[in-house]
Amino acid sequence: MTAAAPPAPYEQTERTTPTRIRERASYDREVVHAILDAAYVCHLGFVRDGAPVVLPTLYGRVGDRLYVHGSTGSRPLRTAGRAGDAGMPVCLTVTHVDGLVLARSAFHHSLNYRSVVVHGSAFQVTEEAEKRAALDALVEQATPGRAADCRPASAKELAATAVLRLDLAEVSAKVRTGGVNDEPEDLALPHWSGVVPVAPAYGTPIPDKDLAPGTPLPAYVAAL
Amino acid sequence: MTAAAPPAPYEQTERTTPTRIRERASYDREVVHAILDAAYVCHLGFVRDGAPVVLPTLYGRVGDRLYVHGSTGSRPLRTAGRAGDAGMPVCLTVTHVDGLVLARSAFHHSLNYRSVVVHGSAFQVTEEAEKRAALDALVEQATPGRAADCRPASAKELAATAVLRLDLAEVSAKVRTGGVNDEPEDLALPHWSGVVPVAPAYGTPIPDKDLAPGTPLPAYVAAL
Repeated sequence: MTAAAPPAPYEQTERTTPTRIRERASYDREVVHAILDAAYVCHLGFVRDGAPVVLPTLYGRVGDRLYVHGSTGSRPLRTAGRAGDAGMPVCLTVTHVDGLVLARSAFHHSLNYRSVVVHGSAFQVTEEAEKRAALDALVEQATPGRAADCRPASAKELAATAVLRLDLAEVSAKVRTGGVNDEPEDLALPHWSGVVPVAPAYGTPIPDKDLAPGTPLPAYVAAL
Repeated sequence: MTAAAPPAPYEQTERTTPTRIRERASYDREVVHAILDAAYVCHLGFVRDGAPVVLPTLYGRVGDRLYVHGSTGSRPLRTAGRAGDAGMPVCLTVTHVDGLVLARSAFHHSLNYRSVVVHGSAFQVTEEAEKRAALDALVEQATPGRAADCRPASAKELAATAVLRLDLAEVSAKVRTGGVNDEPEDLALPHWSGVVPVAPAYGTPIPDKDLAPGTPLPAYVAAL
């Protein structure tokens, strides 16, 4: 029995090569997927009338594809629809903030973070099975286990929802971890220095006012 | 004594008018400032070779101006430098995730959030006093109280740092709060339904390995 070969990294391109601190960049498929899978909100950039637009939106990952969705009447979805077969040039970015890095010098203040930047073209999904799988992935991304525990979209709801697909091809991760990088001559300064960890926290679930009394909290919600 | 007049709202424009769910949008200056002041990481979009680029970066607010910074060698800063007097068209977006909204129907799943989207042109800051004030604001944005408790940038560090200014003029907030909006005919479905609150949480500060023993944790760090 031989171990499975690790998946090939993403191809590095000019625009996925940072201009500085290159050692923070990664093209490793598992690193990229892990960062994407730990979040569910991305910032989607597109160009409208020559100017950039950046909107927060939910996403879902299925293998090497990401999906975002919206009303068929929303701006990015209509823009993508007009783009047709060529697709709409987008940049999709996901960021986790992991810590504030408080250095003794203002200059060396920093952030611990993990981010993924995806460049590519987004295409409207028209095939119903792919559309339904994408919507399931969007629900699962934020709350794993939920897609099987809710009513699927009706035909009318499906028709009112536009889904965009973006392939993971030109993609990179960037990660900063660790402590403070002060200059040696600053180490004796009196200022407190260190890292303050940051992470999202979930509060106590608030049941809907119309929820039937006694409806148990699902294990997948309690596990968040 | 008369109460001060509330500040005028931001002017609504075609691109700050949502195509749908317009009741979630706000142009109220205090609403916009409060959302900006509760965060310190934004997603900055710009256009490079006709394609969008979205990068996470720190920001600071001073009145009706936002500042971002970076190495003079970094891509957005170099692009802005080339843009010169015309400025670089950007879109700067700040998002807080406040809760997962788990509806009985997949379609009505949503997110509670607060976001601000700023459209405009970014300009390089060249005047030293404004540059220093901007860098202070960047440090203060993430850790209020810190700018006065660290070594300010040296002349060399200042020269290596580029700062961009973006005026808050064409800007809108978008906020979703509250509970689940299921269809009346779905209320009897057996699925648990409600909101799971989400908020960033700070962990126990980790002192730098070279910190002099006995250095007290500053009150402004403990207060995070």
